[in-house]
Amino acid sequence: MPDQTKFTLPEDRIPTHWVNLLPDLPGEPLPPLSPATMEPAGPDDLTAIFPMEIIGQEVSMDPEVEVPEPVRDAYKLWRPTPLYRAHRLERALDTPAHVFYKYEGVSPAGSHKPNSAVAQAYANKQAGVKRLVTETGAGQWGSALAMACAQFGLECVVYMVGASYDQKPYRRAMMESWGATVIRSPSDTTEAGKSQASHPTGSLGIAISEAVEIAAADPDTNYALGSVLNHVCLHQTVIGQEAIAQMQMAGEEPDVVVGCVGGGSNFAGLAFPFVRRVLRESARTRFLAAEPAACPTLTRGAYRYDFGDTVGLTPLMPMYTLGHDFVPPPVHAGGLRYHGDSPMLCGLVKHGLVEARAYKQNETFAAALQFAHAEAIIPGPEPAHAIRAVIEEAEDAKLAGDERVILLGLSGHGHFDMSAYESYLAGKLEDPEFSEADMDAALERLPAAPAIA
Amino acid sequence: MPDQTKFTLPEDRIPTHWVNLLPDLPGEPLPPLSPATMEPAGPDDLTAIFPMEIIGQEVSMDPEVEVPEPVRDAYKLWRPTPLYRAHRLERALDTPAHVFYKYEGVSPAGSHKPNSAVAQAYANKQAGVKRLVTETGAGQWGSALAMACAQFGLECVVYMVGASYDQKPYRRAMMESWGATVIRSPSDTTEAGKSQASHPTGSLGIAISEAVEIAAADPDTNYALGSVLNHVCLHQTVIGQEAIAQMQMAGEEPDVVVGCVGGGSNFAGLAFPFVRRVLRESARTRFLAAEPAACPTLTRGAYRYDFGDTVGLTPLMPMYTLGHDFVPPPVHAGGLRYHGDSPMLCGLVKHGLVEARAYKQNETFAAALQFAHAEAIIPGPEPAHAIRAVIEEAEDAKLAGDERVILLGLSGHGHFDMSAYESYLAGKLEDPEFSEADMDAALERLPAAPAIA
Repeated sequence: MPDQTKFTLPEDRIPTHWVNLLPDLPGEPLPPLSPATMEPAGPDDLTAIFPMEIIGQEVSMDPEVEVPEPVRDAYKLWRPTPLYRAHRLERALDTPAHVFYKYEGVSPAGSHKPNSAVAQAYANKQAGVKRLVTETGAGQWGSALAMACAQFGLECVVYMVGASYDQKPYRRAMMESWGATVIRSPSDTTEAGKSQASHPTGSLGIAISEAVEIAAADPDTNYALGSVLNHVCLHQTVIGQEAIAQMQMAGEEPDVVVGCVGGGSNFAGLAFPFVRRVLRESARTRFLAAEPAACPTLTRGAYRYDFGDTVGLTPLMPMYTLGHDFVPPPVHAGGLRYHGDSPMLCGLVKHGLVEARAYKQNETFAAALQFAHAEAIIPGPEPAHAIRAVIEEAEDAKLAGDERVILLGLSGHGHFDMSAYESYLAGKLEDPEFSEADMDAALERLPAAPAIA
Repeated sequence: MPDQTKFTLPEDRIPTHWVNLLPDLPGEPLPPLSPATMEPAGPDDLTAIFPMEIIGQEVSMDPEVEVPEPVRDAYKLWRPTPLYRAHRLERALDTPAHVFYKYEGVSPAGSHKPNSAVAQAYANKQAGVKRLVTETGAGQWGSALAMACAQFGLECVVYMVGASYDQKPYRRAMMESWGATVIRSPSDTTEAGKSQASHPTGSLGIAISEAVEIAAADPDTNYALGSVLNHVCLHQTVIGQEAIAQMQMAGEEPDVVVGCVGGGSNFAGLAFPFVRRVLRESARTRFLAAEPAACPTLTRGAYRYDFGDTVGLTPLMPMYTLGHDFVPPPVHAGGLRYHGDSPMLCGLVKHGLVEARAYKQNETFAAALQFAHAEAIIPGPEPAHAIRAVIEEAEDAKLAGDERVILLGLSGHGHFDMSAYESYLAGKLEDPEFSEADMDAALERLPAAPAIA
């Protein structure tokens, strides 16, 4: 076996299908509930904001869904993404573990988000929609959708969480460079925004409410969500499928797959194709989801039906939640500041197939810099959480003396997060943590929805 | 021929040798001159600031120079870089031309600069040097050297041009994340800096003077330059060698190769392997160098011996120059604001093998956005100049009705230049131009060196 570092695939190895894990999941899928009736929501509850193609993907029980050729063609702009063996990090950690990472930061928007953005933009274009409206926290999803709309000739409007809008003018300029309109949330352009004027720094939940309100009111405008929903997780599975092929090139099988979780799409994208092999009993792999201690949805949340947005315009979903009106502290991992998580991923956590761990901000930046010194790439603050978990696993492998094979999802670079690194290097980062009292208060405000059986 | 977009090479196709064009150039190489004597400078004039390995590469007449295995191993962190067929840009321009681009922005520092940075860091590490000191304008080279020093365990000090230091705190944070020390230039840490206190926004020439002064005074510290010199152009030829292999995969031969020029290393890296084929009469390719109208070294400069730095500490080199004390206006293409250019490249321009064109700032940003809408990648302001030239060529091909094959060097992304895009979108960019009067004044201040025969 040569000392190979980078495992590349030619463009004809871009997956032709997305992996739909829904039919493989234990038990019957739990339906979303209509916010008006608290009864199971049907496609009709979604047609005002999504095209039928996307609704079909959301509820599909087909094990594979074909990637439309124009989407696969757009993927060629950055896919297949490289898989690396982290030889240098292994040496720095003096670990017998074999560490691999799948790097999604080579996309033009800098993260995995375009994998779903181009799929959603294409489906809407085909349906005759003129304009997509969305929200963005850290700016990764907004950038991805702006880029995708430029590709398919759609207008794009992005409601950007107020705190990020103020802190990250360059993310905003990036979206505007691709032709998008960026609006600070909460705004006075929607009723939802006006109702939340008392939270001037905003939240992802508020920005979602604004975007959904606009989309629901205009037949030429649809909504696009960057995580959580089944179809978004579906689109992201190109990552894991490529990783399976690349790990085969490396002649290795991962013992543990590690990713960060905000809404779950990055984690799902890498892990679900591997999870399927575990569920079908052809592999034994552990899965590790890393999240912030400031927004510990999977490790501290309640497994309940809750809204996807703050105001309560979206269907209720069965998931771990910190409460739909929870406004997380302003940690720099803006992509991980969401009160809920993908129902599919939550089900896997509930069934014990995925283990979740929460990390504090400073330890994740320390891990990110250790990674940057060794592997050169400066990671985003979001995957820094997964890197922290990988270092734990690698240190554990050293204690155990085993050649554990660890696969990390490196979901994006940190080029638009350098102010966070600056604060960390200056010793100015705080370590906020979600408390028991926060959870008790949140539980009291959860909607009166049926309990999950 | 399938509609292929991305041409990738596996890591074992990273070049094993650099291409040294020096022995192929027409005529005898013109020697650099000692600043003390104005006589031809020898290796002794350089040993205070460069290791022997680098000095050997600077003057080598071998047609190929082997890439040391640890350097090739570091290249694996991002090389081979992808070559793309710009199908989308071709459609947007409605041109019969076939446009290809070689994308160096996938490197962890975001540009082609690490190709030389890791080579220089390794050579210095082997020579027992403890610390490298350099200058940076836009921050691309400083980032690359900081990253390379982290790879090889060297300390790194970067003198950053004052205007960039103030405008680009995130570039600074990036260098610091890799462990470098960044000092605003002109500084009070050097005599050179103190002598230029009347130019508070600094220039590349001043920052070079500061870095060279520090390196010359400390035996454990060496200097590293990011462009202009022969060995830097040499290291960059990995780009063109890969591009030759990738163009063969595409079944095409470039009619014209286009790159931007600041000090010349990006242009040399892509073009020199193709130039060799023209000089050896095995190909007929045109070469097009794009530079800013605000700093039009190749199109307006005098072909003379001049210093590489402002204060006059470096050897004099035979090159097109706007005068070593020229302080270019603060256009955003910081990497192109240098008074001189690579002597090898200048020789090719002088002999008519390379054509140079100068572009104004606003037209380059317009071209960059046209590219970003079509190809998704947001280019740096430097390669935006080359993109402008490519669009001219593609429009000319349309008029001529020919399927011209155009190869563009896309030297880096614009993630750290979004404030420039913001200014462009707001209509606030100026279009400064270098004038005849500027040149007349510069000519009067050129050093009294022998004329070039």
